Amino acid sequence: MTELDLPHYTQLLAQQAREASRKLVSANGNKKNDWLRRMIELIRQRTPELLEANARDLQQAPEYGLAEASIDRLRLTEARLQGIETALEEIIALPNPIGEVIGSNMRPNGLLVTRIRVPLGVVFFIYESRPNVTIDAAALCVKSGNAVILRGGKEAFHSNMAFYALLQQGLKDVGLPEQAVQLVETTDREAVGHFLKLSEYIDVTIPRGGKGLIERVARDATMPVIKHFDGICHVYLDKSADPELAESITVNSKCQRPGVCNAAESLLVHTDIAATVFPRVAQALLEQGVELRCCPQSMELVSGAKPVTEKDFGTEYGAKIMSVKIVNDMDEAIRHIHKYGSGHTESIVTTELAAAEKFTTEVDSAAVIVNASTRFNDGGEFGLGAEIGISTDKFHARGPCGLVELTSYKYVAHGAGQIRE
Amino acid sequence: MTELDLPHYTQLLAQQAREASRKLVSANGNKKNDWLRRMIELIRQRTPELLEANARDLQQAPEYGLAEASIDRLRLTEARLQGIETALEEIIALPNPIGEVIGSNMRPNGLLVTRIRVPLGVVFFIYESRPNVTIDAAALCVKSGNAVILRGGKEAFHSNMAFYALLQQGLKDVGLPEQAVQLVETTDREAVGHFLKLSEYIDVTIPRGGKGLIERVARDATMPVIKHFDGICHVYLDKSADPELAESITVNSKCQRPGVCNAAESLLVHTDIAATVFPRVAQALLEQGVELRCCPQSMELVSGAKPVTEKDFGTEYGAKIMSVKIVNDMDEAIRHIHKYGSGHTESIVTTELAAAEKFTTEVDSAAVIVNASTRFNDGGEFGLGAEIGISTDKFHARGPCGLVELTSYKYVAHGAGQIRE
Repeated sequence: MTELDLPHYTQLLAQQAREASRKLVSANGNKKNDWLRRMIELIRQRTPELLEANARDLQQAPEYGLAEASIDRLRLTEARLQGIETALEEIIALPNPIGEVIGSNMRPNGLLVTRIRVPLGVVFFIYESRPNVTIDAAALCVKSGNAVILRGGKEAFHSNMAFYALLQQGLKDVGLPEQAVQLVETTDREAVGHFLKLSEYIDVTIPRGGKGLIERVARDATMPVIKHFDGICHVYLDKSADPELAESITVNSKCQRPGVCNAAESLLVHTDIAATVFPRVAQALLEQGVELRCCPQSMELVSGAKPVTEKDFGTEYGAKIMSVKIVNDMDEAIRHIHKYGSGHTESIVTTELAAAEKFTTEVDSAAVIVNASTRFNDGGEFGLGAEIGISTDKFHARGPCGLVELTSYKYVAHGAGQIRE
Repeated sequence: MTELDLPHYTQLLAQQAREASRKLVSANGNKKNDWLRRMIELIRQRTPELLEANARDLQQAPEYGLAEASIDRLRLTEARLQGIETALEEIIALPNPIGEVIGSNMRPNGLLVTRIRVPLGVVFFIYESRPNVTIDAAALCVKSGNAVILRGGKEAFHSNMAFYALLQQGLKDVGLPEQAVQLVETTDREAVGHFLKLSEYIDVTIPRGGKGLIERVARDATMPVIKHFDGICHVYLDKSADPELAESITVNSKCQRPGVCNAAESLLVHTDIAATVFPRVAQALLEQGVELRCCPQSMELVSGAKPVTEKDFGTEYGAKIMSVKIVNDMDEAIRHIHKYGSGHTESIVTTELAAAEKFTTEVDSAAVIVNASTRFNDGGEFGLGAEIGISTDKFHARGPCGLVELTSYKYVAHGAGQIRE
């Protein structure tokens, strides 16, 4: 596209989003679901156009130096479009969060004070190559009453523009403000910097992508950010751990999908079961092709492991590698988690009630799991429905962020002439 | 005190606060209330010391160029100490927010997913001259399970240090971590800048004071901030407004305590009642000594008013001055509020249900009030108990911030060996 006046263009989009958000607060749940249903129809009708646009991205992918795995993520197929339709159906099925009375207090003077769930307002959403995210994010934002500015990766530009045309068409068809969803129609990286200054119009920025992107956004944003940097998740095998569960939960947490943020990176083992339970767990991990990086004590209990370094403990491998440390007690395990972890997800395997209570109370992470895989920290698995991301912050939203996490509240008070004395 | 190595000193305090916060998560409600009760005892026992320390501050006040009103705010008396005790009793009476199960979901696979209320962690609280805030803030933070770093104004330094000695004594007496409450023992302004960089240890900063301070903190903080800049509150008299309520609510909103943030600054009147209801309201305001700054249309309906300027509409007077504008309809009133308001508190006076619903739905402010004074937007009046501030942000906390607004949550999931397929 032609050269843009970025300060003007970004400000215009942000203002338009704010205007649209003012109208969206009055849209009821049926209206928003009508739009989601219309999107399913449009995706079916326009499948050839979508695949064609995607083909253009795939053709250009080598120019961007995309690896095979990235090209695969970029690819749309009829089956993947059906996956998007299923995701939309799931969002339709979720209750409309807006207008919910989340608290009330009838004051002694007769003033009825209520707390009402409202949209955050305008979401600036930054994401990378998977084009289905364009639809997911738009659907979650609008269903929660927010206007959204979508900034996709350049690799998926044509696919995103094709989806964007449908999103706009759908909004028009059902009578919702068209500027409720806007896609940034330039891949100029500087555009992001301009948006991050517009806190007057944008209520929250959600970056999804590499750590570099997220750090940049967190540093430069003048509005709140929902983010997670790392998923450095731990499995802790307590002294009372059931050996079978210790094995299956550790293997599942590490191996079921090693590249994702809720996969475990580090195994902590209570010294009392180091000689009994750990060798069995280590053997199972090795059989799955996991490279073990062990502390001196655990190193002696298993063959074929490498020595662990300090740096390993703070590393998100995203691969079949696991660091291992024997700890003297749970306090040491918790200190280790707080020192090296990222506050994402930690699991304990134990049969003792007091141990489970201590671990869940004292470990300061978004999700703390007893006797189950770390892989369950996920919006779908936790029952929130679709998620727009997983937050490792403690402010506003923590853990999986679904519709409710895209909302705020306001106080609405009804009186009959009350004044303060 | 002697010269401090500020980077080292601030880092030490922040690290100590983080350590204390790790211990505080396990403190039950009784323990925290024991401390609050002990504080009441200590304040009674040490009243002479407290008054003596305060006398030193009062003596130095002229050096700091404090006006009479500021000196009065700084002054402690036996009656004011009793007020602090009453505030502590009210905080004791509030339920312990920590550990509350705020949501749960029994998943089809038997995994029980719960959302548990937890402390935010470490609060950095910055405030100005009223020394009672030292006790209030410490009480609210610790009762909500947070460690707090208190940074008071230099004008109240001796009073704050005297209270701080009691806070520490109390923590020691009941066996809570002493570093749950720390007071910054230097009035060097640079110390604040150092703390604002320590997002690794500090979870939220709460500045309370002048707009300059709050803007600086919002700009420089690397962690989330709970704040409000302005209280530019509106009263809107709808076309169906009851004349008596229109008068009493406007007068109370403006005059009951003009210097506070929830006092009204601007009056919007529907054109249909401009000639009938407005003159009566204007007369009542003038009788209270309020200076009216009127739009051309309202100017003609009242004598003794000044013409309003554009700048007036965005101004928090904090005094007996009120801007007035006649609007053609509620949409114009709402647009005006969104353009000039600060998202704090707006009241509508109306007898029509549909008007009340439209106003409460569309106005995007922390509190929207029907037929009652703006002055009710307050933690005590809304039933939250004591408040640490009023937020005009929409992220995390909005409106009055009490104990619950000082908390986050975590997901705790209990399984019996579940793994993901």
